Amino acid sequence: MLVQPYQLSATDVAAKIRDGQLTVEEYAKSLLGRIKERDPVVKAWAYLNPDQVLEQAQKLDAVPQEERGPLHGVAIAVKDVIYTKDMPTQFNSPLYKDDAPQVDAASIIILRKAGALILGKTTTTEFAATTQGPQTTNPHDSSRTPGGSSSGSGAVVADFQAPISLGTQTGGSTIRPASFNGIYGFKPTWNSISREGQKVFSLILDTIGIYARTVEDLNLLADVFALEDDEPPSQGYSIQHLKLGVCNTMVWPQASPSLNRAMAKAVKLLRENGAIVKEVEFPEYLEDLPKWHSIVFNTDGRTAFLPEYRVDKTQIADQLVGHVENRLKISRAAQIKAFDEIAAARPVVDDMLAKYDAVLVPSVPDEAPKGIEATGSAAFNLIWTALHNPVINIPGFAGENGMPIGLSLVAPRYQDRKLLAVSQTVGKLFEASGGWKSQIV
Amino acid sequence: MLVQPYQLSATDVAAKIRDGQLTVEEYAKSLLGRIKERDPVVKAWAYLNPDQVLEQAQKLDAVPQEERGPLHGVAIAVKDVIYTKDMPTQFNSPLYKDDAPQVDAASIIILRKAGALILGKTTTTEFAATTQGPQTTNPHDSSRTPGGSSSGSGAVVADFQAPISLGTQTGGSTIRPASFNGIYGFKPTWNSISREGQKVFSLILDTIGIYARTVEDLNLLADVFALEDDEPPSQGYSIQHLKLGVCNTMVWPQASPSLNRAMAKAVKLLRENGAIVKEVEFPEYLEDLPKWHSIVFNTDGRTAFLPEYRVDKTQIADQLVGHVENRLKISRAAQIKAFDEIAAARPVVDDMLAKYDAVLVPSVPDEAPKGIEATGSAAFNLIWTALHNPVINIPGFAGENGMPIGLSLVAPRYQDRKLLAVSQTVGKLFEASGGWKSQIV
Repeated sequence: MLVQPYQLSATDVAAKIRDGQLTVEEYAKSLLGRIKERDPVVKAWAYLNPDQVLEQAQKLDAVPQEERGPLHGVAIAVKDVIYTKDMPTQFNSPLYKDDAPQVDAASIIILRKAGALILGKTTTTEFAATTQGPQTTNPHDSSRTPGGSSSGSGAVVADFQAPISLGTQTGGSTIRPASFNGIYGFKPTWNSISREGQKVFSLILDTIGIYARTVEDLNLLADVFALEDDEPPSQGYSIQHLKLGVCNTMVWPQASPSLNRAMAKAVKLLRENGAIVKEVEFPEYLEDLPKWHSIVFNTDGRTAFLPEYRVDKTQIADQLVGHVENRLKISRAAQIKAFDEIAAARPVVDDMLAKYDAVLVPSVPDEAPKGIEATGSAAFNLIWTALHNPVINIPGFAGENGMPIGLSLVAPRYQDRKLLAVSQTVGKLFEASGGWKSQIV
Repeated sequence: MLVQPYQLSATDVAAKIRDGQLTVEEYAKSLLGRIKERDPVVKAWAYLNPDQVLEQAQKLDAVPQEERGPLHGVAIAVKDVIYTKDMPTQFNSPLYKDDAPQVDAASIIILRKAGALILGKTTTTEFAATTQGPQTTNPHDSSRTPGGSSSGSGAVVADFQAPISLGTQTGGSTIRPASFNGIYGFKPTWNSISREGQKVFSLILDTIGIYARTVEDLNLLADVFALEDDEPPSQGYSIQHLKLGVCNTMVWPQASPSLNRAMAKAVKLLRENGAIVKEVEFPEYLEDLPKWHSIVFNTDGRTAFLPEYRVDKTQIADQLVGHVENRLKISRAAQIKAFDEIAAARPVVDDMLAKYDAVLVPSVPDEAPKGIEATGSAAFNLIWTALHNPVINIPGFAGENGMPIGLSLVAPRYQDRKLLAVSQTVGKLFEASGGWKSQIV
């Protein structure tokens, strides 16, 4: 079967455009065709203007070869909490309907300079801060949620409406949709990519996230964003030389039978293929990490949403009103304690992780639940968001209903490139033998 | 002598407008007259459009009484690294010349909703991230710097061109200009006011700052920004019931004779008036706090300025190019260590400070130096920025050349309101007996 341009990975499409086998305009038209076909079901776009996309594409085609960047012509979808010049940024909030500040987020400036084609804005839960889903459906089963808050960014990559996309994570907003949609999701080390121009929920938690269908594409973006470890990682890890940890975490009581099976199968596959896999446990005094995350999440929301509360509190989700009004009556003392306990845990957990090439952890308690009203549980993501560690969701396993379940690899802070290298090897194994394959073409 | 509207404090002007003794337009005209007279010397505005100010003022005058907020008609100047709808935000960078995203920062949304009159944008060093001064002069002596990076915001409040203003602090950018200009400068607890829409330099260091000529005005703004301690502070502290610490800090070898005299005089005044003043010392293992700040400052700049570097590195200060290129070759390991060591120090220092009603510390090594090319030393501010503690510069002392020298009070995190209450009492004493009085009328 002839491969259509919209089906290409970012790496492949960049090569084809570079080699003159494909124009950016042809590529854009292929994507727009795909989007037109699928959008009535998936509904992943908060803003998409085909004319504007084609105009951008034509301009990119006119750029001389020697001025082209590494992402020249590659389409990217952007979560609608990140500012993009010439497109609205609406945060799924009635307060910001049709709002369109003429400014690019730091990430967008970098992407544009690298030659990316900014396709449009993808759906999000309100301010990426609630779990009430937008209208978006899971492309593998439209009766289910694609997860959130990066709902649209996860769905469009799984659905071949874009090869790569930007999300964000404050709780589990990047990793959860990656798992639910059966794609790679990468939350790099906190603050390794500038979050300038991305709606603030929590300064210490918010992290930009990246989606792709291959680790190669994540690496391409890691280059563009100048992610750099102290030592460049070895290339071409082989499974039989990997020393991995596996950590169920303190959240394990929330694991479904599907997650249980996926974790067991993953460990079995890794061991059968020669990897050393050792169990890793958090020290008992860190059991409260999810609780500390929740305190920081709530109290940072008290600061973050005061402007919208003041403008019109009837126009923001009740959960956000609760943050501002400190409905949980979290004291400043408790807030500071949670902030400091997490900070103290970071070097401890880095040391724990550093004994392994990477550590395997759950991404989600289960496959994507039925319904699109709620975006599912972020229980397994909170700790890693709080701890600032890089995390990659790797697809490959299936739940009871045949929906994808991914598992994550985590690494110490600023070992993003090593984590990507390890994930490439592990990803090949999980994709080949995990038992789940995308039926979307 | 008749008091002109431009001379009024924010609290007083709010009362006069509320009572119908003054219209916002009359007030705006008085300020614009003052600015017109003084701007040729002080040069503190990056953007000011008198017609736009008057139009805003007329609109505010038309707002019915019952819809007016606590700052109705009060003018505020805004550092030009904070987004304001309808005005350019240029960061003192040629890359952003005339750039005007149509968006308000979180702080501006809150201020507008409270009825503030946004006067204009004040000068800053490039991206609030260098120490190369803008063209602004110190209103007390035009041959000297007003400090930086919040150069214009400090100068206009001292010079009665605005009663209050917004600044920011990543190193010493709020407290230093406060000291150099002989005004109050308040750096609240980190993240107690949303920094959304304010240029990012360092997520963990950047803090919004506030200038005023009275503590009463700082309190008014603290109300507007919903700053809240666990316990509301006692009102009306009297000096003889205060238990204060005094801490020269590990930076003391950089103190000038003028600072030496100011600190000694302050302690003497406090003791003579009945306060208990005890010496406080940092534990020896925290001696490296300034070094850790410097590492975080540099490495966060690596992330923050990548977009501008990619767009055109010849158009940004060499210092910023150095951050992005990691010219100091700071390893990720060193970066993480500095970040974590500071985090571990925060609760320790909070405990150290909590033994006192507030702790007196230096604001600057000396009075404002000659020349406007360099904005002076932030050596005494870095530790408190890194530690997230609230800090208030209190004016009242004089240097060898008769220029103002302020001293700071610091408190544990989230004791902002208590710090304000204590500062009101201490400020009265320092202003009355410290030996320096503003000659600006």
